Amino acid sequence: MRNDQRDYNELRPVNITPDYIKHPEGSVLIEFGDTKVICNASIEDRVPPFMRGQGKGWITAEYAMLPRATEQRNIRESSKGKVSGRTMEIQRLIGRALRSVVDLNQIGERTVWVDCDVIQADGGTRTASITGAFVAVVLAFNKLLHKKMIKKMPVTDFMAAISVGISPDGTELLDLNYQEDSVATVDMNVVMTGAGEFIEIQGTGEEATFSGNQLQTMLGLAGEGMQELNSIQKTVLGDMTNRIGETRKTEEDSP
Amino acid sequence: MRNDQRDYNELRPVNITPDYIKHPEGSVLIEFGDTKVICNASIEDRVPPFMRGQGKGWITAEYAMLPRATEQRNIRESSKGKVSGRTMEIQRLIGRALRSVVDLNQIGERTVWVDCDVIQADGGTRTASITGAFVAVVLAFNKLLHKKMIKKMPVTDFMAAISVGISPDGTELLDLNYQEDSVATVDMNVVMTGAGEFIEIQGTGEEATFSGNQLQTMLGLAGEGMQELNSIQKTVLGDMTNRIGETRKTEEDSP
Amino acid sequence: MRNDQRDYNELRPVNITPDYIKHPEGSVLIEFGDTKVICNASIEDRVPPFMRGQGKGWITAEYAMLPRATEQRNIRESSKGKVSGRTMEIQRLIGRALRSVVDLNQIGERTVWVDCDVIQADGGTRTASITGAFVAVVLAFNKLLHKKMIKKMPVTDFMAAISVGISPDGTELLDLNYQEDSVATVDMNVVMTGAGEFIEIQGTGEEATFSGNQLQTMLGLAGEGMQELNSIQKTVLGDMTNRIGETRKTEEDSP
Amino acid sequence: MRNDQRDYNELRPVNITPDYIKHPEGSVLIEFGDTKVICNASIEDRVPPFMRGQGKGWITAEYAMLPRATEQRNIRESSKGKVSGRTMEIQRLIGRALRSVVDLNQIGERTVWVDCDVIQADGGTRTASITGAFVAVVLAFNKLLHKKMIKKMPVTDFMAAISVGISPDGTELLDLNYQEDSVATVDMNVVMTGAGEFIEIQGTGEEATFSGNQLQTMLGLAGEGMQELNSIQKTVLGDMTNRIGETRKTEEDSP
Amino acid sequence: MRNDQRDYNELRPVNITPDYIKHPEGSVLIEFGDTKVICNASIEDRVPPFMRGQGKGWITAEYAMLPRATEQRNIRESSKGKVSGRTMEIQRLIGRALRSVVDLNQIGERTVWVDCDVIQADGGTRTASITGAFVAVVLAFNKLLHKKMIKKMPVTDFMAAISVGISPDGTELLDLNYQEDSVATVDMNVVMTGAGEFIEIQGTGEEATFSGNQLQTMLGLAGEGMQELNSIQKTVLGDMTNRIGETRKTEEDSP
Amino acid sequence: MRNDQRDYNELRPVNITPDYIKHPEGSVLIEFGDTKVICNASIEDRVPPFMRGQGKGWITAEYAMLPRATEQRNIRESSKGKVSGRTMEIQRLIGRALRSVVDLNQIGERTVWVDCDVIQADGGTRTASITGAFVAVVLAFNKLLHKKMIKKMPVTDFMAAISVGISPDGTELLDLNYQEDSVATVDMNVVMTGAGEFIEIQGTGEEATFSGNQLQTMLGLAGEGMQELNSIQKTVLGDMTNRIGETRKTEEDSP
Repeated sequence: MRNDQRDYNELRPVNITPDYIKHPEGSVLIEFGDTKVICNASIEDRVPPFMRGQGKGWITAEYAMLPRATEQRNIRESSKGKVSGRTMEIQRLIGRALRSVVDLNQIGERTVWVDCDVIQADGGTRTASITGAFVAVVLAFNKLLHKKMIKKMPVTDFMAAISVGISPDGTELLDLNYQEDSVATVDMNVVMTGAGEFIEIQGTGEEATFSGNQLQTMLGLAGEGMQELNSIQKTVLGDMTNRIGETRKTEEDSP
Repeated sequence: MRNDQRDYNELRPVNITPDYIKHPEGSVLIEFGDTKVICNASIEDRVPPFMRGQGKGWITAEYAMLPRATEQRNIRESSKGKVSGRTMEIQRLIGRALRSVVDLNQIGERTVWVDCDVIQADGGTRTASITGAFVAVVLAFNKLLHKKMIKKMPVTDFMAAISVGISPDGTELLDLNYQEDSVATVDMNVVMTGAGEFIEIQGTGEEATFSGNQLQTMLGLAGEGMQELNSIQKTVLGDMTNRIGETRKTEEDSP
Repeated sequence: MRNDQRDYNELRPVNITPDYIKHPEGSVLIEFGDTKVICNASIEDRVPPFMRGQGKGWITAEYAMLPRATEQRNIRESSKGKVSGRTMEIQRLIGRALRSVVDLNQIGERTVWVDCDVIQADGGTRTASITGAFVAVVLAFNKLLHKKMIKKMPVTDFMAAISVGISPDGTELLDLNYQEDSVATVDMNVVMTGAGEFIEIQGTGEEATFSGNQLQTMLGLAGEGMQELNSIQKTVLGDMTNRIGETRKTEEDSP
Repeated sequence: MRNDQRDYNELRPVNITPDYIKHPEGSVLIEFGDTKVICNASIEDRVPPFMRGQGKGWITAEYAMLPRATEQRNIRESSKGKVSGRTMEIQRLIGRALRSVVDLNQIGERTVWVDCDVIQADGGTRTASITGAFVAVVLAFNKLLHKKMIKKMPVTDFMAAISVGISPDGTELLDLNYQEDSVATVDMNVVMTGAGEFIEIQGTGEEATFSGNQLQTMLGLAGEGMQELNSIQKTVLGDMTNRIGETRKTEEDSP
Repeated sequence: MRNDQRDYNELRPVNITPDYIKHPEGSVLIEFGDTKVICNASIEDRVPPFMRGQGKGWITAEYAMLPRATEQRNIRESSKGKVSGRTMEIQRLIGRALRSVVDLNQIGERTVWVDCDVIQADGGTRTASITGAFVAVVLAFNKLLHKKMIKKMPVTDFMAAISVGISPDGTELLDLNYQEDSVATVDMNVVMTGAGEFIEIQGTGEEATFSGNQLQTMLGLAGEGMQELNSIQKTVLGDMTNRIGETRKTEEDSP
Repeated sequence: MRNDQRDYNELRPVNITPDYIKHPEGSVLIEFGDTKVICNASIEDRVPPFMRGQGKGWITAEYAMLPRATEQRNIRESSKGKVSGRTMEIQRLIGRALRSVVDLNQIGERTVWVDCDVIQADGGTRTASITGAFVAVVLAFNKLLHKKMIKKMPVTDFMAAISVGISPDGTELLDLNYQEDSVATVDMNVVMTGAGEFIEIQGTGEEATFSGNQLQTMLGLAGEGMQELNSIQKTVLGDMTNRIGETRKTEEDSP
């Protein structure tokens, strides 16, 4: 039994509130248990210099935590004057994950800025960010569709992320909360498509190593969690669900 | 009639949700109409170097906006690597305002960090921040009182802030929203105590100047708004209200 | 009696030396007692990006102190690699004050850079800077007039700044020197036009609050000081005095 | 057949030159084909603040490229004034990998700084860095052993890293060179112990996703490559090989 | 004949105003023609970390220009957030020059901060800075002598600096003004002691090279100029002159 | 006899390995005894903004050390976020030296970036960098000649640099190693042309001064060393040697 009464293969309660902030083209508040992240998607009518003139778009992400999202207050990165390595890793991961299910050719020379701001943290902030960001981006594209600025929903498949890990007693766990994460011997984040393909696997054992069998067990748990997350995303997106996949990812789509 | 149907001397709906984030010692979400700010107060058990060894505490504030709190997305200050002049002005103002109603001698060598993070902006973010920060700080001190870490509520009086200004047609207005603020010829922020004394007045006319009479009218409006804000703060603070003022501000209190 | 024998409503000796540095279009050394500031106005033939294509100009200010302008040596801001919040507040204030009395439509797509460098500090550096900067800017515009680069003196009225405050014994004082400023319970800076209208009021009580009556007394003192400063500015500007106000500030003038 | 005549499961020629630079405690030049990295390990007699007083050590890594290690010259990170997200990711990865096979309790309050400087790049710079850094660290510990500053070789097992990926035609490949890497649809870096356990898996598909079967094939290739790398490391380390593993990684070892 | 009517071996008018700013322990305004530099020497009662515990002092220098000291306005280094290479070169040069004639053992664990701020530039700002800084430092030490904080004047000899160069027509010139400097083919700065020994020679030909004979001619001119500068320094220092050299530079004096 | 058995006027063994790194247009490894520097010359097809539209080129240099090039590990400048004054001085010196023997008119609007990266340091890193950079630049221009992108070898003469100094016992020494350099009372770097003219002289005595006679002796030693260096450069350059000087430096060549 886990510290919050969950079974080893059980997600925390997941809640997604759409249209949470009024200004962004797409906005959600996503909650994985006590982890709460505001995901805002903004559309900008130009692309970064390295993409110009190719007739296609770009998606980039930024991630931050409020200083007191955590048990101990963190120094604000704007005060430190630089972004930490951890933050950079996470924002690069969010961006890659989103780009992998969007046909950038369909969106014209536009940039989608995705801001994931953690207002309360209890483990899994990066997986909640990715899962929520997916919904925010679909909402933003839906707005472009209604304004007839794009012709098709450019999203090729559902996408979500979840953490798995190994507890000190050797049990593989799904969706670690902060207390579990801080004692886990192995920590893995998995990003998958609705079709069950992998987009990203990042597994790390700093104190311990893991075998091929343990890897398989963890990937199995991740697969189960992913199906639940996709189903929650579908409920929130309602009618938009049917438009996901109307574009197929093509090979020329890569930057 | 104003663009949101208010009378010239009418506040927007003000809402304060206490205990909004779970980790901080004091936390509120404050809403002035569509302006929404998370105010978190954190207690740190030491003071900055310039205050050490004096047996008294310090209060400091930080202020930020989510990139898409505004109509147009702003570049994140952590990405720019520096904090703007506007942000610095606001956080210095919030800190001064709070210190003016707290007897720093009562709190020991502790720092209160107040983080005001605007998640949605529609004008008046600095006045909402100050008004909400006051409540967050009282909540945090209340926690210290319960843990018997301090003996008396160190807050000497109520305190809140409100904006006033002059519209292009010459009308003095209370609590400007973003649209009003962007066309106002004079913009003034007033911070006052529950007793009706001034803590800070910052009035600016970039496009226009203002007369002594206009100044008086604006200060009158501010005084009215302040009473309403104090009354809302009291409702939220409930029993804690009676402890405000049990400490009197003394002259030796200044840093 | 004050520590330098002045009466409560008496300015320190004010001295303005025009054409102090040879390169700038406008340059003065201004002295408020022992406070000495070099104010240089430079004309650049372009405006910042956010102003381009509007056919009007911009005025911006920078403020700094020599490291040993003060009793204790300050670390140079270029060595620290960042500008302090105090410096930013002051330079934003100087810029706003100047823009409020200049018709930016008259100066074409030019930027006036005003550099206020304090070489010796004894309180009131920001008010001396504003008062001297006004003269430097008029000198610079006069040079443009002589070169027929502009047609009218674009300055709509005289403008100066002065500090007022309240001493620990409760006396309202005009033009505080450093020793007075460091013990004052209330500190206020007032920027006014030659016509006696307010441009900016910034009053702060960190250790104390102030009543409406005290505010009125301070504003009265400021008004008296302002007249003396205007009269000194007129003496320095000589013939140029008559051209001030030949342009009237129009509403479209704002950025 | 690959662009450099290798089979799909074939490493490039790997060469490790020990004692390459004279000052560091441990130093190697490692070559994976045309990729050349200088790996220097330096011992410092103190640990970072967050580790002090625990009686154990720390290992940290830094990674950089000479500006012209690549086909196009890169701007030097010292000139840009900040380290890129990619660099941070790599140096964090190198540090974690090394710490996973070192018993930090054995080395006392010392920090091992590992500097991986790429002097020529042709793909696989992070895997070459990790593989070379392992050898440099063993050399450095060997020096401490000779000076009797530590009692046992604190390294618990061999460790190396290799890249695998999927080519545009769907073939899984071992040890991608730059040309292969730039067109690969999936890119994965695998860090493993001599015993065949995983330390880190980072697999990414930006343009494509990958199935569970493809993952297994790639992990199989990585396992083969790892054995070859371990064997090359053993040849270079000679007698030191026998001391690897004389310390067993214990659970209390984690930071 | 030179553009300002001087002979090839003639200094510009040199003027040194002692006690120019009131706060610093030593302060002068030095003028080399139209080049004007405020040199302030501040005494701090501690040394930088690398000097602690040795019972001796340190001298360091900072150099800056007001933005409009020059014909074209320069961006303030505090705004750029970094100090230019040119500035760093100059401040390192000033510091070395001063340290070469001060017996650091005589001043205890104190730091002398020398600030050279160019308020108007017309060539030779670094040589004027060094020459003026020497006087400011002697004034500061004199104050320490009077307060009996040191026993002997720790200055071992006079010291000054002057520029020499070669004009486009091949003439060697002493003390180049800005116009001469900007067309000179060779530019050399020479720092010498009162006894005629060299402290520093920095000669550069970017567009041209120079022969051994030309070098000798330039060094001869520098020697002549140096004597005049020493004589002006002596006049300003008056009675203090006799105390220069009462300490002899010893070998253990170096850091 | 010196600590490495050399005579006072003897260079350390000098070795230059051409084409050391494969990507740059010109690349050498240069060794002055145990000092080893990789010098890479890169050609970029544009010039910096201040040079545009003049139809001529630019040469700029960057210099860095690997953190453990030295006995004690240095903090990486990219981690510190800024380049030290020493580094800036050296890279400005390398750039000036190279520009003094290249006719920038011959190379079109191109920039030559020269990167000098010290992989092992034992004194004389700046002189080794200049001497090696000269060869790397000639190799790069030779590549442009072969591609017919330029018509003539734009290098007007040979160029090299060497250090001289005075040991604590008063002996003038050629080519100081680190141990000698750290105790020398005078340190001088000399850059000369193949024709024996001076390009740059930088002589510094921090602990001591030096006389005109000592200066002559040091310059004599430098001249001898320079001839040997030129002869080694010629051997490495082979046939390219004859093309050096086919362009004569013209006066209009300067930036």
